[in-house]
Amino acid sequence: MKQQAFLTRCLMVQGSIQVHHYGVGGVGNAFLEQLGQLSNPPKLVLLARSTQTLMSAAPTYSPCIPFTTWEDAAKSPSLAKSNALPPAEIAAFLASAPGRAIVVDNTSDLTLAQAYPIFLERGVSVVTPNKKGFSEDITLFNDIFSSAVRGNALVYHQCTVGGTLPVLSTLRDLVSTGDAIIRVEGVLSGTLSLLLGEFMPGNGTSSAQWSFLVSHAKEIGHTEPDPRDDLNGLDFARKLTIIARVIGVEVTSPDSFPVESLIPVELSTIPSSAEGIAQFMSELPKFDAHMDAAKNSAEKQGKILRYIGSIDVTTGAIEVGLRHVEKGSPIANLQGSQIVSIYTKRYGTNPLILQGGGGGGEITAMGLMADLLKAMERLK
Amino acid sequence: MKQQAFLTRCLMVQGSIQVHHYGVGGVGNAFLEQLGQLSNPPKLVLLARSTQTLMSAAPTYSPCIPFTTWEDAAKSPSLAKSNALPPAEIAAFLASAPGRAIVVDNTSDLTLAQAYPIFLERGVSVVTPNKKGFSEDITLFNDIFSSAVRGNALVYHQCTVGGTLPVLSTLRDLVSTGDAIIRVEGVLSGTLSLLLGEFMPGNGTSSAQWSFLVSHAKEIGHTEPDPRDDLNGLDFARKLTIIARVIGVEVTSPDSFPVESLIPVELSTIPSSAEGIAQFMSELPKFDAHMDAAKNSAEKQGKILRYIGSIDVTTGAIEVGLRHVEKGSPIANLQGSQIVSIYTKRYGTNPLILQGGGGGGEITAMGLMADLLKAMERLK
Repeated sequence: MKQQAFLTRCLMVQGSIQVHHYGVGGVGNAFLEQLGQLSNPPKLVLLARSTQTLMSAAPTYSPCIPFTTWEDAAKSPSLAKSNALPPAEIAAFLASAPGRAIVVDNTSDLTLAQAYPIFLERGVSVVTPNKKGFSEDITLFNDIFSSAVRGNALVYHQCTVGGTLPVLSTLRDLVSTGDAIIRVEGVLSGTLSLLLGEFMPGNGTSSAQWSFLVSHAKEIGHTEPDPRDDLNGLDFARKLTIIARVIGVEVTSPDSFPVESLIPVELSTIPSSAEGIAQFMSELPKFDAHMDAAKNSAEKQGKILRYIGSIDVTTGAIEVGLRHVEKGSPIANLQGSQIVSIYTKRYGTNPLILQGGGGGGEITAMGLMADLLKAMERLK
Repeated sequence: MKQQAFLTRCLMVQGSIQVHHYGVGGVGNAFLEQLGQLSNPPKLVLLARSTQTLMSAAPTYSPCIPFTTWEDAAKSPSLAKSNALPPAEIAAFLASAPGRAIVVDNTSDLTLAQAYPIFLERGVSVVTPNKKGFSEDITLFNDIFSSAVRGNALVYHQCTVGGTLPVLSTLRDLVSTGDAIIRVEGVLSGTLSLLLGEFMPGNGTSSAQWSFLVSHAKEIGHTEPDPRDDLNGLDFARKLTIIARVIGVEVTSPDSFPVESLIPVELSTIPSSAEGIAQFMSELPKFDAHMDAAKNSAEKQGKILRYIGSIDVTTGAIEVGLRHVEKGSPIANLQGSQIVSIYTKRYGTNPLILQGGGGGGEITAMGLMADLLKAMERLK
């Protein structure tokens, strides 16, 4: 009975800056919608976007913020409104609320991620798909988890890697039960999985030009607004960094290992403005020969060209880039799915494989919700 | 600080009757060994096998039982020894112990599974790879989970399906976050995955006779002692029953849907004694023509023969048996791994796929340990 006092009563959603700009309105909106559909939803007491904050009035923290759009919620006369607040102030507000508080960070903001230790030290848990806190400098990563221990708070960030795929939880289970992870490899970008799968199908052929496929994927919303944010491999490298750290391979930063960019050097300095993006897209066809050569080289060896990342735990070698893979292998057969293959001592020659649709607003929101439900369960 | 009072102090391991008879000494021994290697192991206060019980002496519940073989533990003069005790008595013993108690059921015993509600009602949690409690009559399944709610206790049985593969937790996440599961299909028997993969490889050919492959798998310990326990598909059907129930498809019992047995009718009445097993193995070659015909039929259609199970959530249809699958599909490429493909509304055409080595004593023990660690974390 005593445990009833620990019911999760408070929740802050950073809902404005969305991680994925494609899909059904991005992660933030899809998440708020799913939250409202829970049979036993937590109480939303603070909603923040980059320059504004909505709060339930202390000391009662009541009424709560409705699970609706920012615009609708802001109309409520009983909610306090202010400009953006410093994290320490928000942490104090949440730590004083009845029950255990959870911050849901739905941004891709480094500054907010740098404030996680402030929340965690005060016993406020963090649930987030924001990769920054876990893939930037190793100091921040370590700070986050040591603050969580000191503050007796929880950190759930499963959907920073692979959307709803249980990649990080499975790796943590393997490590905590004493298995030895030997190698992890996979495709951690749904966009690059799709592009390479169309460019060189696992079974069948394609004569489509690389630049045409990129252009088509952009048009149907399967790339970031600036496709270079997919093609540079940096988001992929961040995910691989998180995986490596979770299995105990110390990576100082996501640029501390080789990442092959699919952006031609000549086009890498074009600005990321709307005009810059248009210029990039119009010049990309000039470099199709480079990707064709890579494809032909794979073909000559009877292999398939894929953009993959790998962590060799024994040597500590981490790399991301175009590689040749065996025909008929799960990676060769990908057509837009993400995949992670985990080789361990106990699993031997048959790796543990997790494969699935990966990102997209609705799916990432679902992974985030699964994390939130787990955190709420443990804070009960 | 108050929560410190809830540290998991007590654990009972039913370690004698092992679920898997192949692998490194079965699940029970591998599990006890892994338990002893934890940095912060729970206290073992009761160890039971079919006819004997070892207990730490109440009311101090100290000293604990060492993480060693039954024979070594039984030598300790400070432990109480008795015959098998009725579950109600064990539940009373555990419920009175300091901290929260967990029963780890490492048997495949239905009688013990039928006693889970007794433990759970008294606040004693259950962690187990024993399929019986979750795959027998639906009444028992429902009793287990309603008792857990009433007793505020936990039930973890992830490794009843797919060893360490996070099948059930992933399905629960999908359901609890509001996704609609459309179809689940897969290969839930490592033995049948291996046999069919050798009989008709996904890429390549084989002229090996079915009976020879069964005989070889038996010799190297890749089947149950009586291979008919694999070939009858019943263990597979139990796993599919558990999956169906977890996603809300009500299955009254594991024999309430069609399961194709790979045991020739003529050999199904041979007793399961050592002589019976020998007789079965010696007569199996007479029926190779039947499996050859199934293989040829698949070949003619350019497909691959696999033994799979499926749940169609819309129609409620569940079935297990030999089916033709597409060449190049993940199921066609299996060679001993288990696999589960989950089709949902949100995942669309790209299913979520979980694939891996599956059973084996060490791997199932690892799945069990992961469950135990999660239960301990939540009972803290």
